[in-house]
Amino acid sequence: MKSGCKYGTHRVILPEGVLPQAALKIDNTMEIYDNEILVDVIALNIDSASFTQIEIEADHDSEKIGRKIMEIVEERGKMQNPVTGSGGMLIGVVEEIGAALKDKIDLKPGDRIATLVSLSLTPLKIEKILSIKQDIDRVEVKAKAILFESGLYAKLPEDMSENLALAALDVAGAPAQVAKMVKPGDSVLILGASGKSGMMCAYEAMKRVGPTGRVVASDRREDALEMLKKNRFCHEAFAGDATKPVEVMTKALAHNGGREYDIAINVVNVQNTEMSTILPVRDGGIVYFFSMATSFTKAALGAEGVGKDVTMIIGNGYTRGHAEITLEELRESESLRAIFEELYV
Amino acid sequence: MKSGCKYGTHRVILPEGVLPQAALKIDNTMEIYDNEILVDVIALNIDSASFTQIEIEADHDSEKIGRKIMEIVEERGKMQNPVTGSGGMLIGVVEEIGAALKDKIDLKPGDRIATLVSLSLTPLKIEKILSIKQDIDRVEVKAKAILFESGLYAKLPEDMSENLALAALDVAGAPAQVAKMVKPGDSVLILGASGKSGMMCAYEAMKRVGPTGRVVASDRREDALEMLKKNRFCHEAFAGDATKPVEVMTKALAHNGGREYDIAINVVNVQNTEMSTILPVRDGGIVYFFSMATSFTKAALGAEGVGKDVTMIIGNGYTRGHAEITLEELRESESLRAIFEELYV
Repeated sequence: MKSGCKYGTHRVILPEGVLPQAALKIDNTMEIYDNEILVDVIALNIDSASFTQIEIEADHDSEKIGRKIMEIVEERGKMQNPVTGSGGMLIGVVEEIGAALKDKIDLKPGDRIATLVSLSLTPLKIEKILSIKQDIDRVEVKAKAILFESGLYAKLPEDMSENLALAALDVAGAPAQVAKMVKPGDSVLILGASGKSGMMCAYEAMKRVGPTGRVVASDRREDALEMLKKNRFCHEAFAGDATKPVEVMTKALAHNGGREYDIAINVVNVQNTEMSTILPVRDGGIVYFFSMATSFTKAALGAEGVGKDVTMIIGNGYTRGHAEITLEELRESESLRAIFEELYV
Repeated sequence: MKSGCKYGTHRVILPEGVLPQAALKIDNTMEIYDNEILVDVIALNIDSASFTQIEIEADHDSEKIGRKIMEIVEERGKMQNPVTGSGGMLIGVVEEIGAALKDKIDLKPGDRIATLVSLSLTPLKIEKILSIKQDIDRVEVKAKAILFESGLYAKLPEDMSENLALAALDVAGAPAQVAKMVKPGDSVLILGASGKSGMMCAYEAMKRVGPTGRVVASDRREDALEMLKKNRFCHEAFAGDATKPVEVMTKALAHNGGREYDIAINVVNVQNTEMSTILPVRDGGIVYFFSMATSFTKAALGAEGVGKDVTMIIGNGYTRGHAEITLEELRESESLRAIFEELYV
């Protein structure tokens, strides 16, 4: 068995010297190095920005979506959307663990896991696509994948279904970051609040701001607002198109007594929503971008352009304990769990 | 005189409802609204990522560079590089101030100012390009520009030349953010340290870390390392190609006693340097991206892909007092000023 790099650089084909995520092509030979894990894949959960892009390109035709996914994986050796750059995650069963890794980790062949690193850096070989569930961005496959030594994973919990856990773990970074960042008394604005990530962030923000804080949710879908308020995922909610910053700012301030927010969280899966997130925040406040559709330059130059002294954070998909924090939300909140069961499983 | 929006939305032609920075085309009619400032432009200082891209596309031919710039401004109504999305800044003389703004600001016609908002959102009409200075990314022009009410500017100081002040103000955001973020005792890694922004950040970091901290500078240019050390802009320096993350990480840790850094600052003006900035930082540390060549998804998915729990910040071109902090560096440090005089004026 060959020895591999912790970060998987031994799999990079093109260009040389980069890490697997940045590579245009990686080696998806399904013979493991001594510090890799071979996974028998059950399903891919494509990241929302990526799936939406492919869905639109393929006119919502499942067969075309499947062909596009096969094409991408054949070309790149991984499921990384060339337009959005993003991936998603997968669930599967551990098939083999490299000799050098075997005694260092709490996994054995047969364990069911979800990988918590992006598909955009995970060697993948799809033999066959079994079914495509457009409503939950999920692709069931016969496939194998490789997990590197630095790769994160979660054993699937026994007190909830696989699909439910996967749906939540897919966005694990966001609510866990919210848990660490939001303080009692904060006013928090959440854009794209009716999405999977949005609801979890809103729920977590409500928990953290306490009785003196305020969570205002916004979404393009009018019909989602009642659901958000009824389930107490926010104090107030308004309908707004996040690509229209002036409109969003006006409505957002009106829902916060005319005051600017301490924190704005962007979980919208379309482009050009940076300014709607920046404008409603006070000088010295925090702007958190979790959407993979965020443009770095639009945010950086946009804040400068309007003279806003805000701290803008790139949503990191990983923070310590993110899987635990996220799964715990589903145990704590019956309504969140029921909605997830209904919409994403 | 017509009344305009504080953020300049009245100038947006395409697409509707966005702010000027996100617009593909803005109205560059040089007749001001009542809250705008008309500026007689002396020179454009093109942002480094943008100028480098145009320079390469034009084979370093000044005439071709000029044609490309004219083309962009004619098409968009502003100098926003369609590839990088970025702009730069300008200096000029105040020609006219809108009636509604006149008594609210400390400016009068005839004042020489530098605009501190990006050219990527500033209405601009170029009559003629007078000269292109490729070594300092500067374009001297006969042109007019519009500054919105929310637009930031600095009156040019009298104790230094216009070109010197402009060269420094162009990167004002970065050193001012460093001043606010770096604490005594921190270990700080600066990638791209020999550039304009890099030197200012390094100088500021040295000031802030104090005797118990450590600043390590890296640059692709070997010959710059001696300069950085000799002028005490860092404790140690090493040559490294920031597009090679594994190489940079290995060298960076070796220069910090094998320990990961508290803070890494990226001021490299080429693509694919995200991972070199993330890998050397400890869990819980800060990664600051100032380069306009940064990719949001590469950073977000990259940190997750290697399981790094770091806070990644999008460099905001504005923070309160940024112009003052930056100009003060040139007054404090004779060597920094001498280098700026030599290289950028």
